[in-house]
Amino acid sequence: MVTLERDAHFAQRESLCRVVGELGAQGWCQGTGGNFSLTLSRDPLRLLLTRSGVDKRNLGPADLMIVGPGGEPAPEETGRPSAEAALHGRIAALTGAASVLHVHSVANTLLSEHFAPRGGFTLRGYEMLKGIRGIATHEASVFVPVLANSQDIPRLSGEVETLLAAHPGLWGFLLGGHGLYTWGGSLEEAKRHVEIFEFLFECAARRTPFHPFAG
Amino acid sequence: MVTLERDAHFAQRESLCRVVGELGAQGWCQGTGGNFSLTLSRDPLRLLLTRSGVDKRNLGPADLMIVGPGGEPAPEETGRPSAEAALHGRIAALTGAASVLHVHSVANTLLSEHFAPRGGFTLRGYEMLKGIRGIATHEASVFVPVLANSQDIPRLSGEVETLLAAHPGLWGFLLGGHGLYTWGGSLEEAKRHVEIFEFLFECAARRTPFHPFAG
Amino acid sequence: MVTLERDAHFAQRESLCRVVGELGAQGWCQGTGGNFSLTLSRDPLRLLLTRSGVDKRNLGPADLMIVGPGGEPAPEETGRPSAEAALHGRIAALTGAASVLHVHSVANTLLSEHFAPRGGFTLRGYEMLKGIRGIATHEASVFVPVLANSQDIPRLSGEVETLLAAHPGLWGFLLGGHGLYTWGGSLEEAKRHVEIFEFLFECAARRTPFHPFAG
Amino acid sequence: MVTLERDAHFAQRESLCRVVGELGAQGWCQGTGGNFSLTLSRDPLRLLLTRSGVDKRNLGPADLMIVGPGGEPAPEETGRPSAEAALHGRIAALTGAASVLHVHSVANTLLSEHFAPRGGFTLRGYEMLKGIRGIATHEASVFVPVLANSQDIPRLSGEVETLLAAHPGLWGFLLGGHGLYTWGGSLEEAKRHVEIFEFLFECAARRTPFHPFAG
Repeated sequence: MVTLERDAHFAQRESLCRVVGELGAQGWCQGTGGNFSLTLSRDPLRLLLTRSGVDKRNLGPADLMIVGPGGEPAPEETGRPSAEAALHGRIAALTGAASVLHVHSVANTLLSEHFAPRGGFTLRGYEMLKGIRGIATHEASVFVPVLANSQDIPRLSGEVETLLAAHPGLWGFLLGGHGLYTWGGSLEEAKRHVEIFEFLFECAARRTPFHPFAG
Repeated sequence: MVTLERDAHFAQRESLCRVVGELGAQGWCQGTGGNFSLTLSRDPLRLLLTRSGVDKRNLGPADLMIVGPGGEPAPEETGRPSAEAALHGRIAALTGAASVLHVHSVANTLLSEHFAPRGGFTLRGYEMLKGIRGIATHEASVFVPVLANSQDIPRLSGEVETLLAAHPGLWGFLLGGHGLYTWGGSLEEAKRHVEIFEFLFECAARRTPFHPFAG
Repeated sequence: MVTLERDAHFAQRESLCRVVGELGAQGWCQGTGGNFSLTLSRDPLRLLLTRSGVDKRNLGPADLMIVGPGGEPAPEETGRPSAEAALHGRIAALTGAASVLHVHSVANTLLSEHFAPRGGFTLRGYEMLKGIRGIATHEASVFVPVLANSQDIPRLSGEVETLLAAHPGLWGFLLGGHGLYTWGGSLEEAKRHVEIFEFLFECAARRTPFHPFAG
Repeated sequence: MVTLERDAHFAQRESLCRVVGELGAQGWCQGTGGNFSLTLSRDPLRLLLTRSGVDKRNLGPADLMIVGPGGEPAPEETGRPSAEAALHGRIAALTGAASVLHVHSVANTLLSEHFAPRGGFTLRGYEMLKGIRGIATHEASVFVPVLANSQDIPRLSGEVETLLAAHPGLWGFLLGGHGLYTWGGSLEEAKRHVEIFEFLFECAARRTPFHPFAG
């Protein structure tokens, strides 16, 4: 059973590994950080998700597991998914995303920490904004919400649900001092969103007067 | 017909893919950004151009298409060229360039945004300026024009034409908050210009007191 | 004898070379800098350690040697270990580490120089802290001690011993203007600690108002 | 003749290509910048040198040529050496270097421009200084001279000669707004010096309050 299930998704496992490897090569999954999912089916909702603690630069098909909408392992699975599996399930369910990608970068960490007290920040005036689905001009304003970080994943899932309800058409948000969640209608689109957001975050970070680190 | 046409340009497709791959590996085509052309013939003007939305890090010969001087697909082509195809055609026609390359970098985005109100900036005193064709000494001054960004490509094409007429010997310009267009008498020269400009932009960016990002 | 000894540890040599190569590719072993060890046995304590002056980006099994607890070469070895071999031995003995890794980065050099007079600094509020063993929440505070750099390795070993006694559960420290020592219960954990610390150091460094370089 | 000469130095050509490729991969030879030599014989002095305008990331044995002490092509050579060939010859003759390496980096460009009016700057207090031959402690002070850049290579050669006479034991200097020249008793040592200087330059650059770029 397990073998058939896995064989059935082999091409998807390969695709997700390739994309995660490309993101890891850009320094966005340091220290086994980040987690990544691909939607396998909608009814019931089943996601292919990176296992906890695996090296994202050298990901193989066996480093992925199948989880349900609450992040719980599929019946045929062994091993533990990432603690944030439930966030992937919630985002995939509410947005219809084909893929949810979560990365850590220095720029997204610093910006999310800096703007957490204000609940987010707005990117505007950049051509690269057009890489976000639905944006047709650099004159658009894209609000990037920042949620306070929490280890209480059920509570965080609820906040994400509220956030998504309040911002239709949202394609990404930050957790304060933690990182970016973004998604897309396809794996390639989700990957493009990571690169676009991170490019714009680096632009913003180089212009941001961060609070001095006191040590 | 299509097959013969393509076979006829196979070596050029390979060369352009190789150069674009090298630029993409340096982080200058994030999120499928940037577009790149090689002049195939002058009369009539025909360019080999990257298709819209393709991954520049893993470009293959089929990711390129042939367009005419206005950026319109050649009769034998299917698919949509980049919206900026017309700029490539105009630049190739007016400068005689063998290749036009357009990249996005954090440094060129920030500098173009910062200096757009002044219409450009001047690089001087750097040895690397000698990498730009026609420059024989670090004592040269190279003006880098910045045009206001626009989604109105016909209007932008007209402004580029005016710019090129006003600055004979120009090898590159910026679009505000958008990126670099540069070109050369050969594909290798155009690539060298990208690397030279981007090196000098990074030097300038590290010295520029950018306006604080307010979020 | 030597051949058997080496054969007995061939898999470990390969693993350590792979990890060091990955760290070197991130720019943390410039100019043959850094040194790296893997614990082979506890009683007596024997470590596999990088030889002095070898290129960490292209490390091969023969670039490693076996040393005892004081950093002295094992009887069957020829060649000179790194001057800091004794630090590896002391840390492995006192912490039970399976691997001790020492890297140089621009961020760890600058932070260690800046905070040496205060004896260290504290990282807090970052999700990535959870990549350090035993940390379960971003709300943790992790103190990173900075010891004054010294060429007197026996004295430095004594200071490290005092430091480890004073900070149970410590997973890393800095030497001022010199670099990071970190370790783990496995080679993979030690590598993860390098990436986590360096990520957080870069976050901190981008926020630190360093003393201007007077030249 | 040419074929025999080349065969005689094939291993050296391969070694120099490998080292230059490693330096190019770190971004220090952008836009075909930089030039690199290996001493083939002392009496008469003959150097293997990179040809002008070749891509340093993809260097092959045929991209190197043999030059004499004044940078003139060896009798059996065709093609043009780099304009700075004479500097390589002068440095190799006066220091006995086995290899002279010249790289452009953003950090060395900015520092050399900033400190040119003062004639240089001093690095002190960093462990990585020990990567420079003859330095045994981080407490050393290493003066990095900066010569004003010039397109008059004979005059510059004379200034380099004066500089070397005034600073015995010097292993590198900068040309203002231009880049680093460093050398070593072996190719590996020269490469190590590049990496050590560039690491320390990046440390210094991140602490330097550069003059704002006015554009």
